[in-house]
Amino acid sequence: MYNIEPIAYVRNSRTLVEDDYWGDLVSEIIISDKISEQSIKGIEEFSHLEIIFYFHLADLSKIEISSSYPRGNTKFPQVGIFSQRKKARPNLLGTSIVRLLKSEKRTLTVSGLDAVNDTPVIDIKPVLTEFLPEGKIVQPEWSKELMKNYWNTKK
Amino acid sequence: MYNIEPIAYVRNSRTLVEDDYWGDLVSEIIISDKISEQSIKGIEEFSHLEIIFYFHLADLSKIEISSSYPRGNTKFPQVGIFSQRKKARPNLLGTSIVRLLKSEKRTLTVSGLDAVNDTPVIDIKPVLTEFLPEGKIVQPEWSKELMKNYWNTKK
Repeated sequence: MYNIEPIAYVRNSRTLVEDDYWGDLVSEIIISDKISEQSIKGIEEFSHLEIIFYFHLADLSKIEISSSYPRGNTKFPQVGIFSQRKKARPNLLGTSIVRLLKSEKRTLTVSGLDAVNDTPVIDIKPVLTEFLPEGKIVQPEWSKELMKNYWNTKK
Repeated sequence: MYNIEPIAYVRNSRTLVEDDYWGDLVSEIIISDKISEQSIKGIEEFSHLEIIFYFHLADLSKIEISSSYPRGNTKFPQVGIFSQRKKARPNLLGTSIVRLLKSEKRTLTVSGLDAVNDTPVIDIKPVLTEFLPEGKIVQPEWSKELMKNYWNTKK
């Protein structure tokens, strides 16, 4: 058992937990007062960041480790928790690669962060091309269907 | 403050903590006995996985949150902890995208995992193209220099 503690918090206009339509959301990641502003020195030289965050609103009673239908959709095959990216999962950690738009004092402005307002941030890492996947990405059809509206804008 | 617990452990031939030469390492990720084998059902349909792991050997006394020289190399510029991916960092979490070679019972065989033998694994997520970075990755020259031998094979 290990302890982790937020190093920053997300601020954006998204207060409801919904699966889709993260397309046009811009977020601020505000470094905690307990942490030096110097912790993000030099970060503006990177175009993309990897954010590890905590699904603080996920319902622990809904964690299904054995196989389950992604998003409860019975059209999809039943798969295990580690074959999905759903929120209700052991250790409740999410990861996303975001685009860094601006860095100012203790505030990082980013796009592409699929986390609601007040989400605790556990870590921030720069994205290096050397850590991106090698070779062609293969994924099942159901996962493409599931992602169809994820990055769209709500009409 | 949140608690996290290993859901798996890494088994490989790498017992010494060294920065470089992860090139030819093949690792097994063995799902903990406490967790159902069903947790990885369907995972073989994905070519790549994202692994969140715990830097259990990192020296807490070496965590420098304010700016420091990456790898202690004074040729590099001093940057903050969140502008680097070094091990000694708040919350001690590492993330890597690996290639899934084989899935059998509770063992995932992977390449591209830069973690030593016995490393606790905190989460496993499938890689979806929809979550890879959009647009061109920009990173400073020093980070390319630092990564020069990272994925090479030791001669």
